[in-house]
Amino acid sequence: MKTSETLEFREEYDSIGSHQVPQTAYYGVQSIRAKENFPITGQLLDPIFIHSLAYIKKASAMTNGKLGLLDDKVAKAIITACEEILAGQLHQDFIVDPIQGGAGTSMNMNINEVVANRASELLGEDKGKYNLVHPNDHVNYGQSTNDVIPTAGKLTIYQLTQGLLEEMERLEKTLTDKSIEFNDVIKMGRTQMQDAIPIRLGQEFKAYASAVTRSHQRLTQVIDEMLVVNMGATAIGTGLNADVEYVNQIVPTLANITGLELKQSEDLVDGTQHIDSFAAVSGVLRTFALSLSKIANDLRLMSSGPKTGFNEINLPKKQNGSSIMPGKVNPVIPEVVSQVAYRVVGNDTTIAMSVEAGQLELNAFEPVIFYSLFESIKILQNGIATFIDNCIAGITANPERCQELVDQSVGTITALVPHIGYQKAAEIAKRALNNNERVKDIILSEKLLDEEELESILAPEKMTSPGICHK
Amino acid sequence: MKTSETLEFREEYDSIGSHQVPQTAYYGVQSIRAKENFPITGQLLDPIFIHSLAYIKKASAMTNGKLGLLDDKVAKAIITACEEILAGQLHQDFIVDPIQGGAGTSMNMNINEVVANRASELLGEDKGKYNLVHPNDHVNYGQSTNDVIPTAGKLTIYQLTQGLLEEMERLEKTLTDKSIEFNDVIKMGRTQMQDAIPIRLGQEFKAYASAVTRSHQRLTQVIDEMLVVNMGATAIGTGLNADVEYVNQIVPTLANITGLELKQSEDLVDGTQHIDSFAAVSGVLRTFALSLSKIANDLRLMSSGPKTGFNEINLPKKQNGSSIMPGKVNPVIPEVVSQVAYRVVGNDTTIAMSVEAGQLELNAFEPVIFYSLFESIKILQNGIATFIDNCIAGITANPERCQELVDQSVGTITALVPHIGYQKAAEIAKRALNNNERVKDIILSEKLLDEEELESILAPEKMTSPGICHK
Amino acid sequence: MKTSETLEFREEYDSIGSHQVPQTAYYGVQSIRAKENFPITGQLLDPIFIHSLAYIKKASAMTNGKLGLLDDKVAKAIITACEEILAGQLHQDFIVDPIQGGAGTSMNMNINEVVANRASELLGEDKGKYNLVHPNDHVNYGQSTNDVIPTAGKLTIYQLTQGLLEEMERLEKTLTDKSIEFNDVIKMGRTQMQDAIPIRLGQEFKAYASAVTRSHQRLTQVIDEMLVVNMGATAIGTGLNADVEYVNQIVPTLANITGLELKQSEDLVDGTQHIDSFAAVSGVLRTFALSLSKIANDLRLMSSGPKTGFNEINLPKKQNGSSIMPGKVNPVIPEVVSQVAYRVVGNDTTIAMSVEAGQLELNAFEPVIFYSLFESIKILQNGIATFIDNCIAGITANPERCQELVDQSVGTITALVPHIGYQKAAEIAKRALNNNERVKDIILSEKLLDEEELESILAPEKMTSPGICHK
Amino acid sequence: MKTSETLEFREEYDSIGSHQVPQTAYYGVQSIRAKENFPITGQLLDPIFIHSLAYIKKASAMTNGKLGLLDDKVAKAIITACEEILAGQLHQDFIVDPIQGGAGTSMNMNINEVVANRASELLGEDKGKYNLVHPNDHVNYGQSTNDVIPTAGKLTIYQLTQGLLEEMERLEKTLTDKSIEFNDVIKMGRTQMQDAIPIRLGQEFKAYASAVTRSHQRLTQVIDEMLVVNMGATAIGTGLNADVEYVNQIVPTLANITGLELKQSEDLVDGTQHIDSFAAVSGVLRTFALSLSKIANDLRLMSSGPKTGFNEINLPKKQNGSSIMPGKVNPVIPEVVSQVAYRVVGNDTTIAMSVEAGQLELNAFEPVIFYSLFESIKILQNGIATFIDNCIAGITANPERCQELVDQSVGTITALVPHIGYQKAAEIAKRALNNNERVKDIILSEKLLDEEELESILAPEKMTSPGICHK
Repeated sequence: MKTSETLEFREEYDSIGSHQVPQTAYYGVQSIRAKENFPITGQLLDPIFIHSLAYIKKASAMTNGKLGLLDDKVAKAIITACEEILAGQLHQDFIVDPIQGGAGTSMNMNINEVVANRASELLGEDKGKYNLVHPNDHVNYGQSTNDVIPTAGKLTIYQLTQGLLEEMERLEKTLTDKSIEFNDVIKMGRTQMQDAIPIRLGQEFKAYASAVTRSHQRLTQVIDEMLVVNMGATAIGTGLNADVEYVNQIVPTLANITGLELKQSEDLVDGTQHIDSFAAVSGVLRTFALSLSKIANDLRLMSSGPKTGFNEINLPKKQNGSSIMPGKVNPVIPEVVSQVAYRVVGNDTTIAMSVEAGQLELNAFEPVIFYSLFESIKILQNGIATFIDNCIAGITANPERCQELVDQSVGTITALVPHIGYQKAAEIAKRALNNNERVKDIILSEKLLDEEELESILAPEKMTSPGICHK
Repeated sequence: MKTSETLEFREEYDSIGSHQVPQTAYYGVQSIRAKENFPITGQLLDPIFIHSLAYIKKASAMTNGKLGLLDDKVAKAIITACEEILAGQLHQDFIVDPIQGGAGTSMNMNINEVVANRASELLGEDKGKYNLVHPNDHVNYGQSTNDVIPTAGKLTIYQLTQGLLEEMERLEKTLTDKSIEFNDVIKMGRTQMQDAIPIRLGQEFKAYASAVTRSHQRLTQVIDEMLVVNMGATAIGTGLNADVEYVNQIVPTLANITGLELKQSEDLVDGTQHIDSFAAVSGVLRTFALSLSKIANDLRLMSSGPKTGFNEINLPKKQNGSSIMPGKVNPVIPEVVSQVAYRVVGNDTTIAMSVEAGQLELNAFEPVIFYSLFESIKILQNGIATFIDNCIAGITANPERCQELVDQSVGTITALVPHIGYQKAAEIAKRALNNNERVKDIILSEKLLDEEELESILAPEKMTSPGICHK
Repeated sequence: MKTSETLEFREEYDSIGSHQVPQTAYYGVQSIRAKENFPITGQLLDPIFIHSLAYIKKASAMTNGKLGLLDDKVAKAIITACEEILAGQLHQDFIVDPIQGGAGTSMNMNINEVVANRASELLGEDKGKYNLVHPNDHVNYGQSTNDVIPTAGKLTIYQLTQGLLEEMERLEKTLTDKSIEFNDVIKMGRTQMQDAIPIRLGQEFKAYASAVTRSHQRLTQVIDEMLVVNMGATAIGTGLNADVEYVNQIVPTLANITGLELKQSEDLVDGTQHIDSFAAVSGVLRTFALSLSKIANDLRLMSSGPKTGFNEINLPKKQNGSSIMPGKVNPVIPEVVSQVAYRVVGNDTTIAMSVEAGQLELNAFEPVIFYSLFESIKILQNGIATFIDNCIAGITANPERCQELVDQSVGTITALVPHIGYQKAAEIAKRALNNNERVKDIILSEKLLDEEELESILAPEKMTSPGICHK
Repeated sequence: MKTSETLEFREEYDSIGSHQVPQTAYYGVQSIRAKENFPITGQLLDPIFIHSLAYIKKASAMTNGKLGLLDDKVAKAIITACEEILAGQLHQDFIVDPIQGGAGTSMNMNINEVVANRASELLGEDKGKYNLVHPNDHVNYGQSTNDVIPTAGKLTIYQLTQGLLEEMERLEKTLTDKSIEFNDVIKMGRTQMQDAIPIRLGQEFKAYASAVTRSHQRLTQVIDEMLVVNMGATAIGTGLNADVEYVNQIVPTLANITGLELKQSEDLVDGTQHIDSFAAVSGVLRTFALSLSKIANDLRLMSSGPKTGFNEINLPKKQNGSSIMPGKVNPVIPEVVSQVAYRVVGNDTTIAMSVEAGQLELNAFEPVIFYSLFESIKILQNGIATFIDNCIAGITANPERCQELVDQSVGTITALVPHIGYQKAAEIAKRALNNNERVKDIILSEKLLDEEELESILAPEKMTSPGICHK
């Protein structure tokens, strides 16, 4: 039916030609074209990224309005539209795929159109009429995709990372708590999967905490690179078409409304064409992921068994382990943590290739960088949360089993080397293993040391802290 | 209100304890635990993967029913439930995150529970009562997560790849069509971004088609590895608890209902613990992605400009290129293609690390492998589709511009080497470049060759096909 | 002293200017410039690559000579010089760094100069005088770096791979031998590092052999891509300046003298600009490396201990394991195998990025691709050789320990599920683990099965082959 | 002949058995076994790494000697032997392959044996007799492979990096100098390979310098992680068998003799089992490599042509570009720089996988990490050096060509948007491109602005710095 159709769609025009747009839509022709051009992932933009865009549009309108570069009424309408977005409204009008060509122009035009139409509406104009508030001439005033998009990406990454950093702190704390809880559990240390010398289970958990701390410090440091933004750069960093005062004020304004300590890139040309900072952040996440996966794998090793493995610790039982083997409980949480880690490493490869591919004044591959980096941050945060809550916090030790393994092993021979020499110690170790004898018994039977001396040397607290174990 | 609550939830039990399940849900306690344990991506299982699981459950019930291992009524109810899933129903009851620990046990239990509850319902029993149809004892009969999940992954990858292969054929065809269309466009070839010797634009597009053909062949070949499945292996490939006849018949049955030429792994232990085939498939996709990105980059180079670049071809204008620069149209489709390629390479890294991490009888990291590999296939297919339809098919050439560049260049000097020697040719080339003279003019003024000879040697068709260009 | 200096150096000229060359050197000015321009790795070209270059130069001289395109005397001198190189002489005159810019022009000019000078010398001319035999006009006649270098790379990779394939066969054979030797060793299978159900150690080694077989098949298949070469393409695949008959005959001639079944690329333009085949080969090596590392890791797990680990197998003791811990012997060979694998994966990343970076008519990054790919093949071959000889061949089993672990575990409960149901089995498993009871004892005490039934069900041969274990 | 044989070889023994050792060798049986076990790369240890080992052995002997834990005479002999190594002697006795299993035990034993034999010799004892100075009991006293090797790796990386940092500074300086030299060269900026708006060539080079500065800062920061060492940890970080005073003094002593500000790891267990710091350093190098390759690629783009490309700049001609095309000069230095970058990225992948693979108290994969990381640092330093000296320092601009392209392009229309609006500007841009008209001419003919206004707006200095170009 013709009438209803004309009611349902409006016609919009751009340089390419015309296109129908749903009458109720706040987005416009350029958003639709992008949606049609990039049907890649079927996913939508991250809500925090939409908020970051809204903050930028708001700060620009505030700055341009204050400087008289935008009509006051227009500026206010734009600001109101942005605030609605920040309040969670209008998100359904962000329709473009997160992986897109064009260096993010479609993301930028999507918000430009949504804000222009909503602002127009607020000023009493119909959607699709851009005479009062134009996506380019007003909403995008003094800006370019090439400063808006990297800046929005950085704001998003910075903010997403705060949640991750909190989980990392919680992980450190949980591991440290466990290290205290397990301080007295003497167990066998293993190097290269072979019996080494005794260690306390608490020392192992403390080491995990220390590794997390180191990654936390690296991330805290590198994330500051996300606070250096290139607003004011416009198309290629030269700042063309942005008023000089706007260039000076836009970053402080944005800092003010976001509450973030943003700084303007000292070299805006560099800040526009080089996006190595994203690779730097991803690299730090990657290194953290490697540590995380190592820790997860250690927990799988230590909890292996229960009867044919190490069985030194118990992971909380979170779900049936097998559809066929009754009673089997698997280390499902450490397993998912390693998978998260592998995904983060893969995303880092994507990001590396994308960063390298920049050409001249711009890197057009930011969308896939953001898609990959946002994912890395979020799945790391989610992965750590379940790691803490569904695994680490509930780990228990099997102190008897640990002690039993220490007693069986010949690794304690090392503590005797200062007393009997490497050569003699090696012989005893060999004999103990071959004949299935205990080291202690051989030492005593050979009268190399008496029982008291031996007890003194092999005292657990001595064995697990620096120093030669004296008789 | 107590009454309504008891109506809304049912209590289910497993080895871990009890858990409330929404009364209307077809999934059960184990699916819920998995959902709680793995809140990683927020995504859902791929519908084709759900179908693959349903095919397996159906084939198992058919086989077990036929062999009298399952009660006929129970087998039929299971089969009906599976068919409903294959008809697109019950998908909302697949609630587990695609990235999960446990080697996919949660995916397997999710379908086991959905099928058990639906089959129970068909037999007149309430959901949550598993006395008639039990998720493990009946739906999973003769199976294990460790044969079901890799098999479901392979079926899914095989089927997703068919769509990709079709798009690849369309890409070859489109490039070949273009190579015919551009057969007469003489242009300058460039090696290392420096003027080389003439080539026909059609030859370049043919080369692109050839590269795609090669990747198509590799993919066609490697994808057959996905047809080798380990159903019958049960937990670790030894086939424990699967009836010998079931082990013999399950793969032919599955082949029959899926229409795929499935084969049973000759070594089921190997087939269960080694999943290098996923890395092999991903590696082929990776190599294809590299070619694809190279082609996309070439198109960006050749269409660069329009005034300050090569400007040899025109990409279809698909959307405004800039929010700030009027009239700018960017190569957005090749750009998104390269991003897809980088993502595929990243996914390949994830898959490589996951495959390497397998231990002993199983690789527990299949979920992230599937997640990454499914994504690679789908975004490649989507990326190629838009590459063809929104870019390649509409490319036009600028023959005059191409000819102009050929005429300006000194690269044609190479064709004269057989006549005047490398040394002399090098001198003329140098002089032409330094003095901005044309090679032709120098040759003629130095009377090295006469005009007719020169024309004959530099005839475009000669220059762009094998042979010494004779006078 | 002037006289001696003029004796020691000769002056050579090229387009860049002049440069002193040691009087005794067979290389010339262009080789020296390359050495100065690319002081990257300090390494030299692989001898097999030098041979591949020599084969190509010889085949070209043969073909051009036969077609009368080269003077017979010159052709013969060139052929003799090439044969000397193939006999291992003149290698010290290959001075360029294997990582170099220029798409391998410097490698090509290095051999062109060496052959030209040696051929000149054979014809009675001084080195450095190129009037009789010129590096470009004669040695390189009908060729270009852009067909010579990729072809030389392919020949080299093909030949290096033969050695690798032989070692892979030896690895398969050794693993298969071990699988026979260990066929009767019943041990506990583990999934996700948790006790699963019994398996025979021989089945595990057979699975390793099967995985190697699969990689061997893939490599055998993909390596044929190295036999498709682009000789005749000259600069960009159009064959300019190569005589048509030469283009037809060069590949058969090269095939003839190398004994390899070489084929000419059907699309020489594609064959020149697209080098995805190197990525394809590397991808297959990468996937093999992943399997290899998984196997190496399994061996580390199974030999872990000896007292606090699995201790199911013994790796041969190859060296003292520790500088501090007497008697410690580490799984050093599996460890080096995993390191080789990680290096191969890293090289694959380098190759992937290099392949993607090709532009238009050429990929200028072949040198680093070759450097990385040659290394991958060689270290894989070396790594496997030591893996076989110093590890796998000498592995022994600890059958009693294996049986002891089977007896301790509760995993055998799975075989009872068909008789007592999943639910009951799960309860017994739980009780056995919690109270440290044996499954058998519980079954008997609860009179669920009698001793004879139990023995029959749990018979090792039944437990480790398909089928429900009947009473 | 027996006599000569006994002269030529000596017999040495270890736990594995006996082995012949060349009579003149300073290395011993364990070094030989390692050489036989690990014939992987055929390369030798890096000399700086050998020095790092020598520093550690010296510092340990000093500390143990001072504390009376080693006999004074023995300590002095060890110190002298180490000093000889530091003076460049005895390097030929380091025979182990840099890629080896055993977490570096063979590297450690190689120096232990060399030092023991040399120290014995100094004390008048024959080589191979270890009664006076024993490799383990004296040279390795208070140490373990597991603290010696990571520490030696860190010292080496720190020191290698100093050379790289200096080259990076020189690169920054050279780029900055060029940015000043090219400050007045107005050229067209390009985004996404499409004409954008004008920029000064100097601004581009400044941006390159800025990117290098950022990587320099990151590297300066992260490299400090290499100063945190775990000497005193012995086998697993618990410090067993190292005297408490030794543990306190060893790092300050080592700091003193190396002149490096070394700190002891606060958590020695963590410091021994977690080697994420190597991944962190490699990650920073990786990110730098990405920037470097992007810059190299930009230079290839800007120097493309000379006749059919951008031709905005000229790279110094360093060598003939082609064996077939006379006069061709290729961007060989930027090409080798990108290859170096790809290799660094590949090495980073190797390192990432190796770091992830650590298990429990140790990561056994340090050797391949060091091999890869040393290579990355060295080839980066070498690559940058040739990049500066053979390329960047000699780049010249083509200002007329640059201006010509600016004049031809329609990109300057952007500066007119504030005066005529986006819509009108887009129309004019379209018309200019379609009809091959100049923007200026259209503006004037349509009387949108007068000539003076136009000149004022389009003044190069305005166009390339922030601000709206006012009339």
